[in-house]
Amino acid sequence: MEIGIIGLGKMGKNLALNLLDHGHQIIGYDMSSEGLEVAQKEGIEVSDSIGELVDSLSKRRVIWMMIPAGDPVDNTIKKLIPLLDEDDIIIDGGNSNFNNTLRRNEYLNQKGIHLVDAGTSGGVEGARNGACMMIGADDSVFAYLEGVFKDVNVEKGYLHTGPTGSGHFTKMVHNGIEYGILQAIGEGFEILEASDFDLDYKEIARVWNHGSVIRSWLMELTENAFSKDPKLEGIKGVINSSGEGLWTVEEALKLKVPVPVIANSLFVRYRSQQEDTFSGKVIAALRNEFGGHKVEKR
Amino acid sequence: MEIGIIGLGKMGKNLALNLLDHGHQIIGYDMSSEGLEVAQKEGIEVSDSIGELVDSLSKRRVIWMMIPAGDPVDNTIKKLIPLLDEDDIIIDGGNSNFNNTLRRNEYLNQKGIHLVDAGTSGGVEGARNGACMMIGADDSVFAYLEGVFKDVNVEKGYLHTGPTGSGHFTKMVHNGIEYGILQAIGEGFEILEASDFDLDYKEIARVWNHGSVIRSWLMELTENAFSKDPKLEGIKGVINSSGEGLWTVEEALKLKVPVPVIANSLFVRYRSQQEDTFSGKVIAALRNEFGGHKVEKR
Amino acid sequence: MEIGIIGLGKMGKNLALNLLDHGHQIIGYDMSSEGLEVAQKEGIEVSDSIGELVDSLSKRRVIWMMIPAGDPVDNTIKKLIPLLDEDDIIIDGGNSNFNNTLRRNEYLNQKGIHLVDAGTSGGVEGARNGACMMIGADDSVFAYLEGVFKDVNVEKGYLHTGPTGSGHFTKMVHNGIEYGILQAIGEGFEILEASDFDLDYKEIARVWNHGSVIRSWLMELTENAFSKDPKLEGIKGVINSSGEGLWTVEEALKLKVPVPVIANSLFVRYRSQQEDTFSGKVIAALRNEFGGHKVEKR
Amino acid sequence: MEIGIIGLGKMGKNLALNLLDHGHQIIGYDMSSEGLEVAQKEGIEVSDSIGELVDSLSKRRVIWMMIPAGDPVDNTIKKLIPLLDEDDIIIDGGNSNFNNTLRRNEYLNQKGIHLVDAGTSGGVEGARNGACMMIGADDSVFAYLEGVFKDVNVEKGYLHTGPTGSGHFTKMVHNGIEYGILQAIGEGFEILEASDFDLDYKEIARVWNHGSVIRSWLMELTENAFSKDPKLEGIKGVINSSGEGLWTVEEALKLKVPVPVIANSLFVRYRSQQEDTFSGKVIAALRNEFGGHKVEKR
Repeated sequence: MEIGIIGLGKMGKNLALNLLDHGHQIIGYDMSSEGLEVAQKEGIEVSDSIGELVDSLSKRRVIWMMIPAGDPVDNTIKKLIPLLDEDDIIIDGGNSNFNNTLRRNEYLNQKGIHLVDAGTSGGVEGARNGACMMIGADDSVFAYLEGVFKDVNVEKGYLHTGPTGSGHFTKMVHNGIEYGILQAIGEGFEILEASDFDLDYKEIARVWNHGSVIRSWLMELTENAFSKDPKLEGIKGVINSSGEGLWTVEEALKLKVPVPVIANSLFVRYRSQQEDTFSGKVIAALRNEFGGHKVEKR
Repeated sequence: MEIGIIGLGKMGKNLALNLLDHGHQIIGYDMSSEGLEVAQKEGIEVSDSIGELVDSLSKRRVIWMMIPAGDPVDNTIKKLIPLLDEDDIIIDGGNSNFNNTLRRNEYLNQKGIHLVDAGTSGGVEGARNGACMMIGADDSVFAYLEGVFKDVNVEKGYLHTGPTGSGHFTKMVHNGIEYGILQAIGEGFEILEASDFDLDYKEIARVWNHGSVIRSWLMELTENAFSKDPKLEGIKGVINSSGEGLWTVEEALKLKVPVPVIANSLFVRYRSQQEDTFSGKVIAALRNEFGGHKVEKR
Repeated sequence: MEIGIIGLGKMGKNLALNLLDHGHQIIGYDMSSEGLEVAQKEGIEVSDSIGELVDSLSKRRVIWMMIPAGDPVDNTIKKLIPLLDEDDIIIDGGNSNFNNTLRRNEYLNQKGIHLVDAGTSGGVEGARNGACMMIGADDSVFAYLEGVFKDVNVEKGYLHTGPTGSGHFTKMVHNGIEYGILQAIGEGFEILEASDFDLDYKEIARVWNHGSVIRSWLMELTENAFSKDPKLEGIKGVINSSGEGLWTVEEALKLKVPVPVIANSLFVRYRSQQEDTFSGKVIAALRNEFGGHKVEKR
Repeated sequence: MEIGIIGLGKMGKNLALNLLDHGHQIIGYDMSSEGLEVAQKEGIEVSDSIGELVDSLSKRRVIWMMIPAGDPVDNTIKKLIPLLDEDDIIIDGGNSNFNNTLRRNEYLNQKGIHLVDAGTSGGVEGARNGACMMIGADDSVFAYLEGVFKDVNVEKGYLHTGPTGSGHFTKMVHNGIEYGILQAIGEGFEILEASDFDLDYKEIARVWNHGSVIRSWLMELTENAFSKDPKLEGIKGVINSSGEGLWTVEEALKLKVPVPVIANSLFVRYRSQQEDTFSGKVIAALRNEFGGHKVEKR
């Protein structure tokens, strides 16, 4: 299939190469000239503008966005609308908030353009060699694209989750679960590290991947990480987040679903980005007030 | 009543003065000669040793310990046992773990000595001018001492909670609740502080103390704290803990009572004592492994 | 001052009576004819419509809404706009989300109408006899109204928190703190209840109100509640919530403030409204899958 | 190797069969005659008493206990001590609290008997066909037994974690992590279930196992569970726990490691076993006191 890819960062470029491997015709575009250059060097045909990209595709056009969530997606869609024809397809392969996907779908539908949300997991490696996609789309649109999804994902690694929006929703929840799993693993190793036993974390991650109940890809990555730096002495415990954990909690709040584990995982991340806390100051000051407990001066 | 007080720190000395105000005969003892001196200067009669203290009391002896929980209490009781007579009374006014109180009561009972646990709240000021006491004791022993408890506490500020052990248990739960309340207040002010509004924290604490649902002594102390340092810029948010919050959670775990708020308040305190976390490092490393997300180097 | 009050439910009616006590001229309106009747019987002059209410007020009109947050506020404002003149004042005394207050203020300002948010705490009793108000308003508008706020609140029980929006924001955080305090108290009493000691909860709440660190109005209410039903056998532990706890968490999430205690207090409420949980089913099923652990059949 | 197995329940019997497959000489014992019978039918040689079992083993005896943690282990060791000779080996393959293992090791060492803790994961299936073992033992004892551990575990599925105690400690932390992972998965599916989308949980678990970041054995089991009962309508969400999650939290508390996720996972389990909560009643009663909010009557 002929596919235009907008966004040639680490995810988009790898997806393009993955598609090329499977015989698809790919034309890429990236906002940065550097991104274009790198892609070209790796054998991806590129366009200098979104307009050129759209022109170079034959109809029924399929355009796959692999760009950061939020404004970039809205801006790109705004540019695409006047260029596209009825029945053309936009795939949003990024981590858009599904509420935005629903909103965008509504006005794209009015123009007769189809929006497909392909929530993508598996990281950079997955984009290149076989990812996992949760896909929201009308039945007929999904049927039209299914071959492509079959090609770029690992075997059985794609699912038509339902109508547009459901793909990003399912991916969001996937990431929410991921937050909780990561925090559970982190807490476990912190207990190991705090204990009096002198333990080999890499070896423990290794044995947990062979026959234990918690064997998993994330535990394999844990083994990898410890094999590079056995006590992680070189790095700081600052954990960023890209939005999907937050959205999962926001959605749970709306749905009145108690999510103590996912929410607390998020709070731990926020806390990791603080040097000191105002709440801590308040409590330290109050303990001093009622009990004369010493406070640490700055 | 004639009462020997062991431990003349900020709590014990103030309790002694409080008792003196109400016409009781007080003899004090403290491990440190400095403590003895200070107490003497403030008009408290003192002994140089526990033996002398016991000797100077007429029977039925009443000895009130105001000393740190744990080994000091065990050591003091060990010294007292051979010196005391049947029916004498030891009051433990400190923050002992009620499980230790139950254990000590068992062997003191075998000697015919009564143990009374008087869990004390209200801080240093309370010890001096009127505290709040939760008292575990046999009925007859409580009746014997009730006048004293009436004197040193604020009006209605003492309760015979039940048999020995129940006083420290109730005090422990009191402190567990206190952990949760403090953390709730801390979180609230941290949200105020993070917002775009330019708010006066002292004034807000003040207004919350006049007619609002959350008016409380702790909110009054919050007002005090902010009146001294309007943004708490001089102090660090490091929060120590003296054990009772931990014991509350341990007890809840044994009793299978879900205590998310008290437990999380304790975790926040532990976290406030860490510069960095191993769990954070693990998670940052894993995010790097699967998503290529940058880690902060040390 | 002449004041129109829209909404004569338990809060609005009591506020009207409170204002009357202080010599203000009050005209009330309520959507329900029953509400109008009850108010009239208690001596409050009423209007049959919002139009009539507005007409009967001399300028500079002051209209105080005591109505449920959300659509009712938007609908009422929509009706008021064409009826009001420049410089008139609308007070929103309900629990509106401060984001809505900011939004409404923007378009009311375009019409020259002032919006004042008077976040009100202290419950029904407070509305009648002296409440606590956190007030967002322009300086000049606050100055114009200050006498009224002084009258209807307890001494020192009102604060000009800043511009419009800051009142509801501060009230929201107040309620967030309240969620955490309530949950801390609840957990404490559940531990007492689960223990082997035979404790008198009313007496414990009572003693905690006399000299202890956690003495507070909420603990006084705890004493009241247990004095009516010593073990709360007559009621269910289902806890509803009216929105402000949720908004506090949503706001904290946006501001990246970790709020484990407030968030977990909210989750406990959500959980209390569920008979069974899907998450519990999933975990029970998984424990059966890997360990053969029995599941309970429905 | 000649090995005596005490405890022929689902884990012990399967381990015995697993060992037989690899050419070891096995003699089993179980407290229940039914257990003995079943084992015998499946080809396991059994003894009628612990004494007979010990007698029938040649020296250096190796005895592997697969019995419930707690008193049964203490009782069995008490019976074994007078029957064993210096240098004999007891393997505790159950889920003992590592603190008990350390305590038992101390007095067994005084008798010259070696205690090996082989924390075992992988469930019933693992015991039969290849498990994962975390093994605490002296170096020389581990070396003596390594061949056996190699035989009964999956490839690379055993680790000498360190001295006696470290195996059960590592297994405990493994289970703590498992609690957190399970709860994260549970919360995720509860959000899916609460949403407006009509999702196929089995298919989602399936796709998450093919290329996604959270692919894992537990997610495969999730797929299995949903393939049997697509909406888990037949079961209740009551989650039991066997102790290791609790111990993990207890240990974390001692070590001052914040474990919000593991602890909250445990609280969710406790909550799932309650029909109603006392804390909920307290909060509902308080909301009624201050705000007149309705309570649900029982």
